[in-house]
Amino acid sequence: MFRRPIITLLSDFGLKDSYVAEMKAVILSILPDAQIVDISHEVRKFDVRMGAFLLARAAPFFPRGTVHVAIVDPGVGTTRRPIIVETERSFYVGPDNGILMLSARREGIRHAYVIENEKYMLKNISRTFHGRDIFAPVAAHIAAGIPPSEMGSEVHDLVTPSFTEPKLSENSVEGEIIHVDDFGNLVTNITENDLRILGITEGNHLLFEFGRKRLLLKICKAYGEVQVGAPLAIIGSCNLLEISVNQGNASKLFGLDVGAKIVMYKIGKETR
Amino acid sequence: MFRRPIITLLSDFGLKDSYVAEMKAVILSILPDAQIVDISHEVRKFDVRMGAFLLARAAPFFPRGTVHVAIVDPGVGTTRRPIIVETERSFYVGPDNGILMLSARREGIRHAYVIENEKYMLKNISRTFHGRDIFAPVAAHIAAGIPPSEMGSEVHDLVTPSFTEPKLSENSVEGEIIHVDDFGNLVTNITENDLRILGITEGNHLLFEFGRKRLLLKICKAYGEVQVGAPLAIIGSCNLLEISVNQGNASKLFGLDVGAKIVMYKIGKETR
Amino acid sequence: MFRRPIITLLSDFGLKDSYVAEMKAVILSILPDAQIVDISHEVRKFDVRMGAFLLARAAPFFPRGTVHVAIVDPGVGTTRRPIIVETERSFYVGPDNGILMLSARREGIRHAYVIENEKYMLKNISRTFHGRDIFAPVAAHIAAGIPPSEMGSEVHDLVTPSFTEPKLSENSVEGEIIHVDDFGNLVTNITENDLRILGITEGNHLLFEFGRKRLLLKICKAYGEVQVGAPLAIIGSCNLLEISVNQGNASKLFGLDVGAKIVMYKIGKETR
Repeated sequence: MFRRPIITLLSDFGLKDSYVAEMKAVILSILPDAQIVDISHEVRKFDVRMGAFLLARAAPFFPRGTVHVAIVDPGVGTTRRPIIVETERSFYVGPDNGILMLSARREGIRHAYVIENEKYMLKNISRTFHGRDIFAPVAAHIAAGIPPSEMGSEVHDLVTPSFTEPKLSENSVEGEIIHVDDFGNLVTNITENDLRILGITEGNHLLFEFGRKRLLLKICKAYGEVQVGAPLAIIGSCNLLEISVNQGNASKLFGLDVGAKIVMYKIGKETR
Repeated sequence: MFRRPIITLLSDFGLKDSYVAEMKAVILSILPDAQIVDISHEVRKFDVRMGAFLLARAAPFFPRGTVHVAIVDPGVGTTRRPIIVETERSFYVGPDNGILMLSARREGIRHAYVIENEKYMLKNISRTFHGRDIFAPVAAHIAAGIPPSEMGSEVHDLVTPSFTEPKLSENSVEGEIIHVDDFGNLVTNITENDLRILGITEGNHLLFEFGRKRLLLKICKAYGEVQVGAPLAIIGSCNLLEISVNQGNASKLFGLDVGAKIVMYKIGKETR
Repeated sequence: MFRRPIITLLSDFGLKDSYVAEMKAVILSILPDAQIVDISHEVRKFDVRMGAFLLARAAPFFPRGTVHVAIVDPGVGTTRRPIIVETERSFYVGPDNGILMLSARREGIRHAYVIENEKYMLKNISRTFHGRDIFAPVAAHIAAGIPPSEMGSEVHDLVTPSFTEPKLSENSVEGEIIHVDDFGNLVTNITENDLRILGITEGNHLLFEFGRKRLLLKICKAYGEVQVGAPLAIIGSCNLLEISVNQGNASKLFGLDVGAKIVMYKIGKETR
């Protein structure tokens, strides 16, 4: 079976305008066989960290050799550099503002290049839309087999985003909400592995503290373990602890959003 | 011409997150040639009936052999079963909560199977995202030609959703609004055939009653038969009677949503 | 490399319903190899001019021979005609209400045809959804190589939309906001060329007047030239002057929307 080269697109462009379509038009003009997959274009405007998070979530499921284009680019046209990052399994194309790095570092970075070679860009570079004029054509050429080293000089000083790590003590974890999904699930930075270190397993009840609220939540194996409308904790689909409401919206119920601190206390099973 | 196998996706995931992209990544990893078509990912959260309605609307227009994946799955991880339904013209993959059945039954069900064979799932099954970990890979394998009977044992006791049927009397129909589309058109469960039985034809005026409101509406052949902003009734694009406003939003104008009862009285033409 | 025929879709259908998927199903049933690209389905309901603007923006980036289907069609089923426009580089399919014409005229119109031949339509034509029943199958047949002249008789009296032209005087331009993008950028009808005629270049400061507000704005080369939250003017990605806020939303900040008048006064550099 012939494998069409895959190019993914992620941005904060929204779906109202023709911006995403213009990028696809440029890609298909260069590489008619490209299989283009949208990761998300509903990243919160200018939110590089949300873009980095979604890209890092989705990338591992794509085949080796996929070219990921990610554009949340408030610095377009300033001194921020357009870059290509080649990892052990993928290529990343976008601005050097950290959006590519969470995912790229997990895969293991081989080389990074600043995009300089105008041969691989559109002829007219607009002031405001490098996604269409630089990143899309460069991604298409890479997917077509042009080595990234043809595009510009190697760089080693890439901007990397900092994500808060959870603080583990003997009986508690201090974490943070790093994403709220479209269901209102509160995704924390506490990993399945953090829970394992603390000896917490599914079925345990834990005391959660956020702001002035305190709540006893069960670590469930399924939303349906609690009543409709009741809160729970669960290991989500990217192996992070999430706070959810069965068939409800945890973000709205608790008034919590990205950045909120959360403390989780281990308690004896006998407390309940 | 080579026909690429078509896989459709329908869900309540929304487009903000990377969930849909992760399903596509899994499908393309297994079946690089898949032609993936999104039916909708904006189904109201947890609304199995809305999902069933949209799937049943769209499915007849796809070619024979299409694999439809539909996931509105509040019971993920509970005892609700993951299933495959093979019909006279398509394959359906999703949870056994009724979402597949409105469409599958119309096409004629040949066989149904519970998905058990781990060989066709991802290696790690998350607690919360069987769309990516079970349904997407199974759909890709079916589209690649693996017989559904390889995936698990045949089942006969599928959950089927119940939809209210309109009640016809000599001079009236009692129906219900079963969908409100993005234009605000009120789609009822009254069919073109119901109107035929009652002897109602386009051009007739009918008295509509909903809540305390009564309204004389013409069954039009085009929105433009009434003034901009005026209400009308029309046979919509899935052969159901719809109440609309020419270049307006009937749902907002009348404050009506899914589930609202509607009674339609036949009147003599001479009344107007 | 085999070039799959490209068909683009633009509409005001939104993404909640299955309407777009039904069009894709019809296209793929006729032309399994079609490469379908969505331009936008979030055009403001019934806003033919917004549809025309987005289509004209995106079309130049697609390869020669692309078939563009654009459907904002409040007159569906009335006497408005379904048409095909063949230009120097593309095909356009949609209602004869002006939506195709901004783009088609820029490319140079060769021929236009009214769609009459039922052989290229679906068997059952609904009252409300010619996108699926007429435009999608016709587009697929054109992309498959059927000459548009097979579809119906040539017409010469197409409806063309009128767009306000900016008024240039020696030291000022009177323009209008013709689009507000998803970032809140205010796209005016003042072109890069209009600025050139007035001798205005990037780096200049200009006095902008809208409603009762007056504002001195710099014509920047990048959003980042001003502080976060500060307004600026910039030549946008379709060569029109735009008013923006660095990492903010100009439409919300100034309370301006499509149709608002804007006057721009040239001032000496020495004023600042």
